[in-house]
Order: sequence, then structure tokens, then C-alpha cells
Amino acid sequence: MEPPQRATQRWALGLEYRGTAFCGWQRQVAQPSVQRALELALSQIAQTETTVIAAGRTDTGVHASLQVVHFDTTAAREPTAWVRGGNQFLPDDVAIRWAAPVDEQFHARFAVRSRRYVYLLTSAPQRPGLHAGRVGWTHWPLDLARIEAALPALWGTHDFTSFRAAECQAKSPVKTIYSAVVQQRGAVLRFDFHADAFLHHMIRNIVGALVYIGSGRQPSGWLRELIAQRDRKLAAPTFAPDGLYLAGIEYDREHQLPEQFVDPCL
Amino acid sequence: MEPPQRATQRWALGLEYRGTAFCGWQRQVAQPSVQRALELALSQIAQTETTVIAAGRTDTGVHASLQVVHFDTTAAREPTAWVRGGNQFLPDDVAIRWAAPVDEQFHARFAVRSRRYVYLLTSAPQRPGLHAGRVGWTHWPLDLARIEAALPALWGTHDFTSFRAAECQAKSPVKTIYSAVVQQRGAVLRFDFHADAFLHHMIRNIVGALVYIGSGRQPSGWLRELIAQRDRKLAAPTFAPDGLYLAGIEYDREHQLPEQFVDPCL
Repeated sequence: MEPPQRATQRWALGLEYRGTAFCGWQRQVAQPSVQRALELALSQIAQTETTVIAAGRTDTGVHASLQVVHFDTTAAREPTAWVRGGNQFLPDDVAIRWAAPVDEQFHARFAVRSRRYVYLLTSAPQRPGLHAGRVGWTHWPLDLARIEAALPALWGTHDFTSFRAAECQAKSPVKTIYSAVVQQRGAVLRFDFHADAFLHHMIRNIVGALVYIGSGRQPSGWLRELIAQRDRKLAAPTFAPDGLYLAGIEYDREHQLPEQFVDPCL
Repeated sequence: MEPPQRATQRWALGLEYRGTAFCGWQRQVAQPSVQRALELALSQIAQTETTVIAAGRTDTGVHASLQVVHFDTTAAREPTAWVRGGNQFLPDDVAIRWAAPVDEQFHARFAVRSRRYVYLLTSAPQRPGLHAGRVGWTHWPLDLARIEAALPALWGTHDFTSFRAAECQAKSPVKTIYSAVVQQRGAVLRFDFHADAFLHHMIRNIVGALVYIGSGRQPSGWLRELIAQRDRKLAAPTFAPDGLYLAGIEYDREHQLPEQFVDPCL
């Protein structure tokens, strides 16, 4: 007699990680990736090889206060088994926040409606120590008002070719930015970018331009010009990954997940 | 002819570090200490063996947003040489914030008037990942009001034997706490302790007791009882070093240093 066929269940997981020690989200042959660390942990819990698909493939050194993944499994487990069990098998700097059963219409990547990234930038004569790897740093003094004056150029639907990495695999360079704001918090500028999607290196390239503007190397109107010119070669260098956090993922409303946004700041 | 005798100058340095990778402040033979890392960097700049004395000898895993040290040298250098030069020779997770020439009456340890420590504590079903090593964690839900009701028992001058580690080398267990307050910031409780001095493990032992109180295992009045009993065996276990930050050092007013307090939160 055959054992009964067990039903496949799709699960969504909320995840957080410090990206410093990883080559990024995506699995690589010889380097430690967050994806591989998670798959090894889940495979232990499921007792069978388990692979995951993520909302956003973060780069080397980029962090997440909220990343969302999904996976399919025939292993019958409670949500706490994935969360607590999974966390026992994960490195210290990666943690599962929650697990939720979802229907098979849910797809961590293709069902995304919008994403939010936070960038933490500090301006100081000396490099960071306590927060090394967790904030972008420039020794140029920055003028918040100049940066605030530049940001509205980003709002709305634009061709962001000027901020697109050569390796970018997106089908189109046209994206819609719902909001792009900055706040001063002590010695740190906290940027919050909310868009339907982002091109590869798009935020780090925008932050690079904003540092040029904030330091007075370029006028506030430069950001609008760069967008219009659609030429990556004209923009500023890509800024460090250190201060970049994937912080929010919004899905179609029928997929009710426990969290849509987690502030990366303590 | 003898070379002219060069005058010795005393310098104060402001320092920040993430303590996770170090055995603590104090130099050890076979383990990486913050003190040794700093001394190696300064010795490179001074071109001669240079030793330092710190305001507070933080434990393994304890961080500092502001530690103050002093050292004596005959090497004539500008403040920026100590700061920028020193930072080039320091590991990523240690940075010199500033350097200031001081007179020889200044002593980083003995001239301290008061110290401030911040403790960051998070309560969540799952352990931290993004902030691993940077926050203390309990899976018990905590009631802020219960903790707030307990804190006034700490204020003022008391014999803190109940919160003193066996290895403590302080001459007296009597210390004066000027303030001990807690704030909720999102998922994190931020404690701020200000005192003339602290015993070894004193804050971690107090936080351990506050977690018992906040979770309902003990009443708010327990903290006052523990202090009165002067018996370490009655108190809660020492809490994790992860969330503890040396954040402020106050000196006699004649020694005007650039900073007295640095918030460890981004």
C-alpha cells in the first residue's frame, strides 16, 4: 500500500538580517548568502531540501528589517516550528520574525505591490565605529534643506535609467516612486523610499547624487536634470551598501500578512 | 650634543566601539581587546609604544557610544593626526571621535564625576537578527508600567551589594544613582542609568531584576527589597551584555571635553 499523498502547503515568512557578513540575498556557489542560510535552516525543520523565493534580492552588505519569502512544503509543521526551530539553525545575524500559511496564489516576488527601503546616512569628520556597516558615511557636511529641495524630483513615474546599474535585469527602467523623504535624527539622515519597484543599485545611486547635492557640489535641481538625461555616466558614484535596509513589502490585500513595514532603527 | 628633551603632552580621546568582537576593554594576553587595538593604532601614529587609561573598563560584548581615555606622549601631533590617522589603524568596529590636549591634572579614570550607561532591551517571541549583539532580548512580554514603578527604588545613594559581581574590585558597594529611567521606543525599551559610578555587572544585574518585574514574575516592590537585603544570591541572573552601552562620561568642569554623552541609538 502506498503512503497517502501529503498536500503541499505554501508558507510566507517574514525575515530580518544584518547583511554585512553575506554576499547578499542570492545563493552563490562559494559564498555565504542569506538565501542559502535560510534554506539550510528550513530544510532541517522540513527534513527535506527546501528552497525559497524572496520579495527582494538584496546586494552584498545590504540589510533587511523586513524581507518576505515563500516556500512550498509537504512537511506539516506549526508556524512556531518554522520560526523558533528555524531560528535555532540560522546564524545570529539572521532571524525569522513570523510564518504564515498562504494560498498558492501568493508569490513573494510577483505579488508585491510596493517596496520600501530606508537608507541611514551619517555625516561626520570621522568614520563610524559603533555603527560600522550599518550606516553610510560621508565626511562632507550636508545641508538638509538642499537635499529636501531635491527630493520631489523623484516623486511619480519616471525613467530612472540614470540610476540603473549596468547589470540590472529589470524589464523596464520606468518605476513609480510613491514617496521619498528625509528626516534628521541626531547625526543621522534617515531616507525613506517607497516605490512599486526599484532598479538595481537605484537607491544607492540616488543617495550618491543626494550627497553631492547636500554637500554643495551640485545644486538641488541636479537630481531633476539627471533623471531627464537618462544617462548613468552623468550621475554620482554608487554609494555604500552599509546604510541600506529593505524595510517594507506590501502585497495585494487578499494576502493578509502580519507585517508590511519594520523600522530598522533602534 | 644631546637632542633637546621633548615635552610630554597628555591627550584625551573620545572613542566609540561595537564590543561584540572583543574580550572587553581591558588588554588580555591572547584575546582581542579594545584597549590593545587602540594602543597599537596610537603607537603607529606616535611611532613609539603608547598606552592608554580609560574612564570605564567595559566587559566582553559591551559597547560604547562614548568612552574616554587619556595617554601621554612626547610625539608632537595635531588632533586630526590622532583621529584620522588612528582610525586608519583601528578595526572597523572601533573609531576615535575626537582628540583634545589636556593638562596633566586630567585623569580619564580618576577625574570622572559621573557615568551614563544605556541598555536596549527588546521583548519579542523570536530572537533578534538584524540587531543581534546590539540589544538584550527576552521572549517574555514586558509591562512598561511595572518597570517604571520599580525604578525609583534605585534613585539616590544605596549599598548595591545585591547587584554586585563576585569579581568586583570597587572599594565600596555604596553608589549614588542620579537617574534611572526607561522609555518605550517601538519594540525596544531604552534604559538610561546615570550614577557617580557602577559596580561590576551592576546594570546587567539590575536589568535582570527588571525583566523579572516587567514579566510579572516578581512585583514592582521587589527591586527595593533586593537593595535592602544586600545579598547577590537573592537577585535575578545577570542579563546579557548585548544591549549595554557606555554612553556618557562627565568630568570636573575645568576639563572641557568636546562631548559628555552620545546616544547609541540610530
